[in-house]
Amino acid sequence: MGHWIYWLDLAGVAVFALSGVILASRTRMDPFGMLVLAAVTGIGGGTLRDLLLGVRPVFWVTAPSYLWVIAATVTLSLIGLRHVHRLSQAVLPVLDAFGLALFTAIGTHKALVLGHGGSVAVLMGMLTGVAGGILRDVLARRVPLVLRQEIYATASMAGATAYVVLFRLALPVGAAMLACLGITLTLRLAAIRWHLALPVLP
Amino acid sequence: MGHWIYWLDLAGVAVFALSGVILASRTRMDPFGMLVLAAVTGIGGGTLRDLLLGVRPVFWVTAPSYLWVIAATVTLSLIGLRHVHRLSQAVLPVLDAFGLALFTAIGTHKALVLGHGGSVAVLMGMLTGVAGGILRDVLARRVPLVLRQEIYATASMAGATAYVVLFRLALPVGAAMLACLGITLTLRLAAIRWHLALPVLP
Amino acid sequence: MGHWIYWLDLAGVAVFALSGVILASRTRMDPFGMLVLAAVTGIGGGTLRDLLLGVRPVFWVTAPSYLWVIAATVTLSLIGLRHVHRLSQAVLPVLDAFGLALFTAIGTHKALVLGHGGSVAVLMGMLTGVAGGILRDVLARRVPLVLRQEIYATASMAGATAYVVLFRLALPVGAAMLACLGITLTLRLAAIRWHLALPVLP
Repeated sequence: MGHWIYWLDLAGVAVFALSGVILASRTRMDPFGMLVLAAVTGIGGGTLRDLLLGVRPVFWVTAPSYLWVIAATVTLSLIGLRHVHRLSQAVLPVLDAFGLALFTAIGTHKALVLGHGGSVAVLMGMLTGVAGGILRDVLARRVPLVLRQEIYATASMAGATAYVVLFRLALPVGAAMLACLGITLTLRLAAIRWHLALPVLP
Repeated sequence: MGHWIYWLDLAGVAVFALSGVILASRTRMDPFGMLVLAAVTGIGGGTLRDLLLGVRPVFWVTAPSYLWVIAATVTLSLIGLRHVHRLSQAVLPVLDAFGLALFTAIGTHKALVLGHGGSVAVLMGMLTGVAGGILRDVLARRVPLVLRQEIYATASMAGATAYVVLFRLALPVGAAMLACLGITLTLRLAAIRWHLALPVLP
Repeated sequence: MGHWIYWLDLAGVAVFALSGVILASRTRMDPFGMLVLAAVTGIGGGTLRDLLLGVRPVFWVTAPSYLWVIAATVTLSLIGLRHVHRLSQAVLPVLDAFGLALFTAIGTHKALVLGHGGSVAVLMGMLTGVAGGILRDVLARRVPLVLRQEIYATASMAGATAYVVLFRLALPVGAAMLACLGITLTLRLAAIRWHLALPVLP
C-alpha cells in the first residue's frame, strides 16, 4: 500500500481503538481489559479481512506499529481519562463513523489491489469497516451499532461501491479514496445527526 | 466439488440467509443490516471451515455466486416481506434445520476430500453446520439454538458420522450425502416437533 | 514444539474444556452442546493464534489428539457429573486461571519460535490465553472474565512479557516457561483470592 494509505490506516486504528477505550471506561474495565477492547476494535476488521482473503500472516503481525498505535492510544487515554469520560456520550458514534469510513476505503482498496472482483471488494470494505465495531459491542454486551435502525452498513456499502466504480474508471487512487471517505462519512454522520434510517417493514 | 454438491451448497446458503433475514426483520433492522445478518448466517459456517482447514482464500472470495445468492435472498424477502414476517415464528427453526443438514453434509465432505481424518471431518461438518446459526444468534442477542436443550449439535454429529462411515465403506458420495442429510434433518425436525432433548444432569 | 510442551498444551486443553463443561452444565445444555462449548474453550485460543500467524491448517487439524482430549474430558465429566456440578461454583475461575497460564506460555513460545518480534509474541500469548474463555463466556451469555474488574489480561501480559525477556536472555525454554506460568498463575489466583484489581477511573 502507498505511504499515505498506511497513515490513513493507522489513523483508523487509533480512532477505533479510542472508541474501544471509551466503551471500556463506561463499563468500568481495568486498563488491560481496556487494552484488549481497544485492540479488538482497532484491528479486528482488518484482521478478519486478511484472514478471509488469505493474506498471511495478518497485517499487524508483520508491522507491529499497529500494536504500538493501540498501546499509545490507551496510554494517552488513561492520562486524560477525565476528558475521555466527559466526552464519551456524544463522541463515541462520531469516532465510530470516522473509523467506519477509513476502514471501508482501505478494505475495498486492499481487495481490489489483490485482484478480486467488485462484489468481493465491496463486501471486504464493509467487513473491514464494520467488524471491529461489532466485536467491540458484542464483547461489551451492547447491541452492535450496525444492527440498529440508523443507516450504518448502508453508508459503508455506498462508499465501497463508489470506490469500486471510480477504480474501474481508472481514476487515481486518491480520488477514489476521497470519494469513498466522503460518502461513507457524510451518510453516517447525517444518520447520527438526523436519525436517518431506511424504512423497515410496516 | 461436484456440480450438484455446488447447488446443494448454494441452497444451504439461501436457506440460512433467509433465516438471517427473518431474525433481522423481527429485531427491526434496516435492509442493509439485514444483508449483514443474512451474509453472516449464510456463509459464516463455511468460512470458518475454510479458515481452519487452511483453504485460502475462503470459498466465496473465488466464487462470488454465493454473495449473489445472499443478495437475491434478501431482495426477494424484502419484496415479500409481509409473508416473511407472517411465517417467521414457525418457520425459523425449520429453515435452520435444513441449513444445518446441508452444511453438515458439505462440511464433512469437504474435509474428507482434502484428505483429513474422520474425527476432523466430523468436527468440520458440525462446525460448518452450526457456526453460521451461532453467529446469527449472537449478533441478534439470542441464546444460540445449539446451546438450548433440544437436540441440535447431536443431529449434526450423527449425520456427519454417518457420512464418514459410508465414505470409508467406499459408497458413492451421493449415497453418503443422502444418508447424512436424512439423518441430520430427521433428528433435528423430530427434536423440534416433539421437543426431544438428551437427558441433562439431575 | 518439544515433547513436554506438547503435554502442557494438552493439559491446558483439558483444563479449559472442563471449564466449558462446567459452564454448560450450569446453563443446562445437552451433552453435545456441552461438547461444543468444551471444544470452543479448549482450542479456541490456539486456533485464533494459528489463524493470525498464518499457520495452516490450525494445530488440531493435523493432531487430532487435541479433539480426543476434549471428547475424553466431556465423557469423564458426564460420568462424574454430580461432582462436577458440586464443585463448579468455586472451581471455575481457578481452572480458568490454570488454562490462562498454560496457554499464555505456549502462545508466546510458539510466536517466538516462528520468528516473530517481542510485541507480537506478547499479544499472541495473551490472545491464546484469553480467547477461548471469551468465546466460552460470549456463547453462554456471561460477561467475559477478561472484561471484569479483577486482574486477568494483566496477569497474562506480565507472564508473556517475562517469557519474552528470559527468551531474549537466552535462558533455557523450560526456565522461561516456568517463570511465565508462575507469574501468570500467581497474579491471577491472587486476584481471585483477594479481588485484586487495577485502579479504574475515579
